[in-house]
Amino acid sequence: MCNEIIDEGSDVLLFLDSKRTYLVKIEKGQDFHTHKGYIRFDEVIGRKYGQSVSSSLGYEFILFKPSLHDYMRKMRHATQIIYPKDIALIIFHSHIGCGSRIVEAGTGSGALTSALAHFVKPSGKVYSYEVRKEFLETAKKNLKRAGIFEYVELKNKDIVLGIDENEVDSVILDLATPWLVVPVAYEALKSGGKIVTFSPTIEQVVKTVNALEKNRFIDIETIENILRRIKVKAGKTRPETLMIGHTGYLTHARKTIK
Amino acid sequence: MCNEIIDEGSDVLLFLDSKRTYLVKIEKGQDFHTHKGYIRFDEVIGRKYGQSVSSSLGYEFILFKPSLHDYMRKMRHATQIIYPKDIALIIFHSHIGCGSRIVEAGTGSGALTSALAHFVKPSGKVYSYEVRKEFLETAKKNLKRAGIFEYVELKNKDIVLGIDENEVDSVILDLATPWLVVPVAYEALKSGGKIVTFSPTIEQVVKTVNALEKNRFIDIETIENILRRIKVKAGKTRPETLMIGHTGYLTHARKTIK
Amino acid sequence: MCNEIIDEGSDVLLFLDSKRTYLVKIEKGQDFHTHKGYIRFDEVIGRKYGQSVSSSLGYEFILFKPSLHDYMRKMRHATQIIYPKDIALIIFHSHIGCGSRIVEAGTGSGALTSALAHFVKPSGKVYSYEVRKEFLETAKKNLKRAGIFEYVELKNKDIVLGIDENEVDSVILDLATPWLVVPVAYEALKSGGKIVTFSPTIEQVVKTVNALEKNRFIDIETIENILRRIKVKAGKTRPETLMIGHTGYLTHARKTIK
Amino acid sequence: MCNEIIDEGSDVLLFLDSKRTYLVKIEKGQDFHTHKGYIRFDEVIGRKYGQSVSSSLGYEFILFKPSLHDYMRKMRHATQIIYPKDIALIIFHSHIGCGSRIVEAGTGSGALTSALAHFVKPSGKVYSYEVRKEFLETAKKNLKRAGIFEYVELKNKDIVLGIDENEVDSVILDLATPWLVVPVAYEALKSGGKIVTFSPTIEQVVKTVNALEKNRFIDIETIENILRRIKVKAGKTRPETLMIGHTGYLTHARKTIK
Repeated sequence: MCNEIIDEGSDVLLFLDSKRTYLVKIEKGQDFHTHKGYIRFDEVIGRKYGQSVSSSLGYEFILFKPSLHDYMRKMRHATQIIYPKDIALIIFHSHIGCGSRIVEAGTGSGALTSALAHFVKPSGKVYSYEVRKEFLETAKKNLKRAGIFEYVELKNKDIVLGIDENEVDSVILDLATPWLVVPVAYEALKSGGKIVTFSPTIEQVVKTVNALEKNRFIDIETIENILRRIKVKAGKTRPETLMIGHTGYLTHARKTIK
Repeated sequence: MCNEIIDEGSDVLLFLDSKRTYLVKIEKGQDFHTHKGYIRFDEVIGRKYGQSVSSSLGYEFILFKPSLHDYMRKMRHATQIIYPKDIALIIFHSHIGCGSRIVEAGTGSGALTSALAHFVKPSGKVYSYEVRKEFLETAKKNLKRAGIFEYVELKNKDIVLGIDENEVDSVILDLATPWLVVPVAYEALKSGGKIVTFSPTIEQVVKTVNALEKNRFIDIETIENILRRIKVKAGKTRPETLMIGHTGYLTHARKTIK
Repeated sequence: MCNEIIDEGSDVLLFLDSKRTYLVKIEKGQDFHTHKGYIRFDEVIGRKYGQSVSSSLGYEFILFKPSLHDYMRKMRHATQIIYPKDIALIIFHSHIGCGSRIVEAGTGSGALTSALAHFVKPSGKVYSYEVRKEFLETAKKNLKRAGIFEYVELKNKDIVLGIDENEVDSVILDLATPWLVVPVAYEALKSGGKIVTFSPTIEQVVKTVNALEKNRFIDIETIENILRRIKVKAGKTRPETLMIGHTGYLTHARKTIK
Repeated sequence: MCNEIIDEGSDVLLFLDSKRTYLVKIEKGQDFHTHKGYIRFDEVIGRKYGQSVSSSLGYEFILFKPSLHDYMRKMRHATQIIYPKDIALIIFHSHIGCGSRIVEAGTGSGALTSALAHFVKPSGKVYSYEVRKEFLETAKKNLKRAGIFEYVELKNKDIVLGIDENEVDSVILDLATPWLVVPVAYEALKSGGKIVTFSPTIEQVVKTVNALEKNRFIDIETIENILRRIKVKAGKTRPETLMIGHTGYLTHARKTIK
């Protein structure tokens, strides 16, 4: 796998440095232009992933096989995309695993959807609800490019009105009014199943927790994680000056049938 | 699955509240004693997961089917166990998924091992190195109880001396001197594969990043996540007073063969 | 001043380490007992501040002249005392200085009062309101011991009902319902004067900001500061494991007469 | 004071909103141009501080009497200016008060100097060392405009080579190599006096703490404060998205003569 050869049609992540990466599909006879010169795809064909290629201006680009994370970072998106730090915690607290059946809303650009699909594959499924039809088109393209569309069922429905699935393992909500979805989430979940909601404001959180308490969810916890990047360099090590101070609060709880 | 019936031999998480939970194996004729009275297992048999049972003192315990997270929280451990917030980020930045082949060191009590195993199953494998033989015994018990031992190979070896596997997807290091393992991790990883290290002190981080830079790893990032719990109650909402201020720094990077 | 001699009646901070300090008044013929042995005050008399003395068990205690901060740390208190990190920001955002006239409520144990008094002395004054008479007694003792009582006027009144002073530089509120005080604070402040409120919950903050907006305050800002202690030791440097995650939110604003 | 009349020569802070403020000196016949229209100073003369004036485009600007903080925010600066959150903690941990004698290095643009001067006035003094002569010129102008130059003595000297003063209350260091200054700071301080250093990197902190331990300083503490701004609006309350993640570490300690 390490020595996989790049061919026509291969996806490649051109990596100059951590902040300058380009996700491309290799086509014979084509060039890819960057502000550091262009790269001839004909020179890329035949190389191995992990090797590098020089641009016309002499800059070296590493040829990575794109990971799910690379596809996620490169997704076209109309909406604010959820941050990796939050996706990581959502997945962990959702108790997702291979074979899980997960309901999600809203789909948005499909970034969280793709991460969920990655962890339920190959035997699980993500049922993703979205009311805005135009977003579903974008999401579909993004999921196809990332090669995980077959593990997702996109649904152009308002989840507040009902969830078609039942006995699902988790319901994951990244939409404006999660508290309105709590009753239908209760119906769809299996006993002990997890609900996870993500909301930027504290008022959303208060309403959601209140709805969870009234709908026989227990083990309710609300958390926020603050991620700091550290600049590491001998003699000059320090947290980065600018950081994302807040994205949202994550609330998770467990269904009981008592 | 929701309606699964509890029988002799079933594992059950007795849940009183978020801070008082007990993981038990149901045996006929046995009782389980808590400071809120005892619970007769004979009364538990035949109930469904998600229902509840009353203790001899009238306290209601919910009968949950244990999740991986419940098994993790209940693991016997001699060492400091890595926090869920850190496990979540390690998994995410490791690019793990179903079928992945992962090298880990050290095993410790097996908490991180179990999370890794959960995400690579059923077709992947975790190769976990530990020099302290006594820890491997505990880890084995913990992994068996959690039902994921078959996805793990425990190795009583010093990882600094070499990694038996090659072309692995990720190498994950939670030990005192990760920088010493960087060269053998490079050898074991496939191109583009991820190394993830977790260290409590900043000096460990500086040494590790230095070793990564010297060993052809790129896209190196060091992060720290600070998790706050929010007490949510209408009119009294606020972050919790006491919090875990620091556990460790996570460094991740990608192997290149340029 | 450095070479000031300790005499009968002197206040001394006995310092064993950062976590074990004792504030005592030296009296002839008396001993002071600690779990590390006793200290004979007769041996202390005649020494200089900054020197040390040995306990009966051979432990060395440094003899510091108490600073305001030492007095603050040693105050008897019935209520939760506000943290130094918050006092520092309150003082800074209050625009206090020598000669300022400051209104404060509630007095509590007088910790914040003493810091305010320290910064307005010798020509300013702190007018401190407290409804609970028993707290005023404690505050009076604490302020006298710290030697700054003359810069404070304690008032056993409910500040919601009115502020006797006018043209004051700042109004500082550390009580449960700051929003109810906003209208009388407006009346008492000079134009451009600062109001500073400190509240643990987010709902208090929302009500306070709303009241400020309705009462012609502008330049309104709500901040929270999270203080981390760093354990510094070559090779083992790291933030401390346990920290205070939240004390309260500070809101400050400026009166306009537009 | 509230009703102070603005006249020719008065300093005024023109306040449009928290992010758009202008510090001006009123001169007859002059206009002040902003992107929201110009303001005629002749219309400002005769008004009271706290009132407002309309620009030529109809925008209302409030006329504030500048506080020290306004002067600080408006200082011309060549160097990175220390943040208010850090100034607040430095002042608090320096044990400064009216009458204190304080040594500071480096002066930089004089922002911290002005805050120190504000708190020692009228009977104290700040001795501020700076090796770069051009910075002293800027600092002098900034301090004069803020009206506190008389409480400061600017010194064009390298503090590492020695401190002229002795028995000072505090030494405050905001320069690249605070550890080199620790021995001369020890000589200059009175017993029990405080040293406070501010450094962006962790390596600076480790060296400084090491030097403090070797030079008979005790009660050493290193802290970092992380300031979050909260956007408060009923229904939409949340911490701000972008924040300053790191400015520097503050270390403070106390001189002993044991």
